[in-house]
Amino acid sequence: MLETTINQVRQTTPLVHCITNYVTVNDCANILLACGGSPIMADDMGEVEEITSICGALVLNIGTLNERTIASMHAAGRRAASLSHPVILDPVGAGASKLRTQTALALLPYAHVVRGNISEIRALSNNGGATQGVDAAADDAVSENNLDHAVNFIREFAKNIGKIVAATGAIDIVSDDQTTYIIRNGHPLMSKITGTGCMLSSIMGAYCCANPQNMLEATAASVCAMGLCGETAYAQGIGTGSYRTGIIDAMSRLDAEKLREGARIEKR
Amino acid sequence: MLETTINQVRQTTPLVHCITNYVTVNDCANILLACGGSPIMADDMGEVEEITSICGALVLNIGTLNERTIASMHAAGRRAASLSHPVILDPVGAGASKLRTQTALALLPYAHVVRGNISEIRALSNNGGATQGVDAAADDAVSENNLDHAVNFIREFAKNIGKIVAATGAIDIVSDDQTTYIIRNGHPLMSKITGTGCMLSSIMGAYCCANPQNMLEATAASVCAMGLCGETAYAQGIGTGSYRTGIIDAMSRLDAEKLREGARIEKR
Amino acid sequence: MLETTINQVRQTTPLVHCITNYVTVNDCANILLACGGSPIMADDMGEVEEITSICGALVLNIGTLNERTIASMHAAGRRAASLSHPVILDPVGAGASKLRTQTALALLPYAHVVRGNISEIRALSNNGGATQGVDAAADDAVSENNLDHAVNFIREFAKNIGKIVAATGAIDIVSDDQTTYIIRNGHPLMSKITGTGCMLSSIMGAYCCANPQNMLEATAASVCAMGLCGETAYAQGIGTGSYRTGIIDAMSRLDAEKLREGARIEKR
Repeated sequence: MLETTINQVRQTTPLVHCITNYVTVNDCANILLACGGSPIMADDMGEVEEITSICGALVLNIGTLNERTIASMHAAGRRAASLSHPVILDPVGAGASKLRTQTALALLPYAHVVRGNISEIRALSNNGGATQGVDAAADDAVSENNLDHAVNFIREFAKNIGKIVAATGAIDIVSDDQTTYIIRNGHPLMSKITGTGCMLSSIMGAYCCANPQNMLEATAASVCAMGLCGETAYAQGIGTGSYRTGIIDAMSRLDAEKLREGARIEKR
Repeated sequence: MLETTINQVRQTTPLVHCITNYVTVNDCANILLACGGSPIMADDMGEVEEITSICGALVLNIGTLNERTIASMHAAGRRAASLSHPVILDPVGAGASKLRTQTALALLPYAHVVRGNISEIRALSNNGGATQGVDAAADDAVSENNLDHAVNFIREFAKNIGKIVAATGAIDIVSDDQTTYIIRNGHPLMSKITGTGCMLSSIMGAYCCANPQNMLEATAASVCAMGLCGETAYAQGIGTGSYRTGIIDAMSRLDAEKLREGARIEKR
Repeated sequence: MLETTINQVRQTTPLVHCITNYVTVNDCANILLACGGSPIMADDMGEVEEITSICGALVLNIGTLNERTIASMHAAGRRAASLSHPVILDPVGAGASKLRTQTALALLPYAHVVRGNISEIRALSNNGGATQGVDAAADDAVSENNLDHAVNFIREFAKNIGKIVAATGAIDIVSDDQTTYIIRNGHPLMSKITGTGCMLSSIMGAYCCANPQNMLEATAASVCAMGLCGETAYAQGIGTGSYRTGIIDAMSRLDAEKLREGARIEKR
């Protein structure tokens, strides 16, 4: 499954429209290229519908949302929905401000996949519980101890909203209402650089675009891919600056064989 | 010619005003510093004319254009024209949306040099032919097989608009209505990172600013310099993340001797 | 003093709200994480007060100011002041345009610390002297020859405005009206990459947040830390691209012992 999925990405060069934040946008574009996709970043109301139309997937990331780009996200989301393009929603910092929570909830209907840390997912589920900034709260962290409980929560939320939900962190959970994948790739250092979540949401766009019949598996495969790159980069890094570079290096060299051998994925 | 051109840049530290996209802006600033220039990024209507005035060149890049910054580009363009400062236009994604094509065409009168991939140049020439996103379409790619035809097209377009045109890709063509340079520096991996085009347009601003009497040669020299850095970085890179870093490393170490020895440039 | 200060940062993970420019924002976020803090970048009027409230410090950087974000900076500044959160002001390019100078002066009342190069500080002191772009003018540069004069100027300015002033460059001066620290860490190559000033202002937010009773010492310690990382990275770098990565690498590995041993700080 993983091999077919990644090969489809490499063979079809999916064109992904990203309306994303200005903090990690360069990393998102570069990792999209590294994974085999092709990024277009465009956020002006005057062109987003056209850009969405020529692309194959849409990634909406609210990391530095503002009034202007929120309107553009809605226009792009509507267009993508009308074209049945996969839409990934990354609700960065949901729970940290009312604007973020409400915007994420308002964009949710367009999405096929919601990817966030567990605190952001909880904020959406709560219609606005508090989170501590853009990082997951320590209390929320998924561990082997609370895994069953977390899996139930994610599956239930996926069922309620009728979407694929990817809650990523120390242990990643990807679920729709029926099937859940638990992924144990990744490295703690990934939380010490900005953008690993944003980058993952971006490549998720490419993976879902290239595998439209198997979006749950595509989502899970992208999570494995990102985590594995985080592991590979750690083996080479000498600090967090080069670690970030190393993750993109690793993605550009990832192939089906490495992914199959390195993936630590469990189906429930 | 190449040596004088690059030495002029290193010796005069040209101050370059960039109104550019938020995806690759950091790379543009860093490569401007690396090549010997000094960047100022400023896009608010309330200051662009003043900033243009204290700089020596202007780079207009529409990669993430919006209503606010388009207005600022016009104000800066008018001011630069009134001061006879070199203006470089990078029509990122022209052809991918009407807004991009029309904006690029509207900004064209201010420009001394237009630099884009061949699909973007064709879109301007067509007043709006379709392109596939921000990358050059495969059909358009310049190769040894269609080179004569491409050279004629670029020269004709340069003549029609009365500007220097730089169409960059696997083979680069720089032309005004009389003289054409064909440059065979560069590496295919440059298309696997975002921003090599934007970075080139930025240093073109510095090269033209430092060599105002020889803008065609300055433009061609900047294309050689960028391509050569792409070759140097490839020899050291281990993936696309470090490749991007390596290009800026190479630019910071490029000197007249390396450029003369490494340039693969043909005059027609 | 230095050891306690840095340990406080590492132990308390200060949450820092940055309203900053889109050129260096990724580096600011990554170096904040590297130093032990946690960044939130948010600039929309609809959320800045909430975000400021959940953070412990605020960094206002006018590098790519615009009408929209200036209003947000005022709202965030007022909120931070009402909560007695440390506020760092980075008046990027003050003196290069009226908008920058006036905006920096208008934001000054919220700030506890102002950090800029000597030309920017002079522009604020002059209510608008000319600067050459965003880099310090050569005439202004602080050297051993004019150090006493520069120290008097900075101390006098600090006294006049009732703030801590950090003027950074070849030699750094940190002063309030009574005590001055002179710091001789750093490397000339730091001026050949964009963002070393912005990054320093960002970590200053974390250092002041974690050491609210000793903000002058915290400011000085952050200047030592940044300069020392600039030295460490130079020892490993092969060009300015990897130098930038290396500074963040060095910050992520900096600890109390390295800082104590490497700091070159003089109290006057």
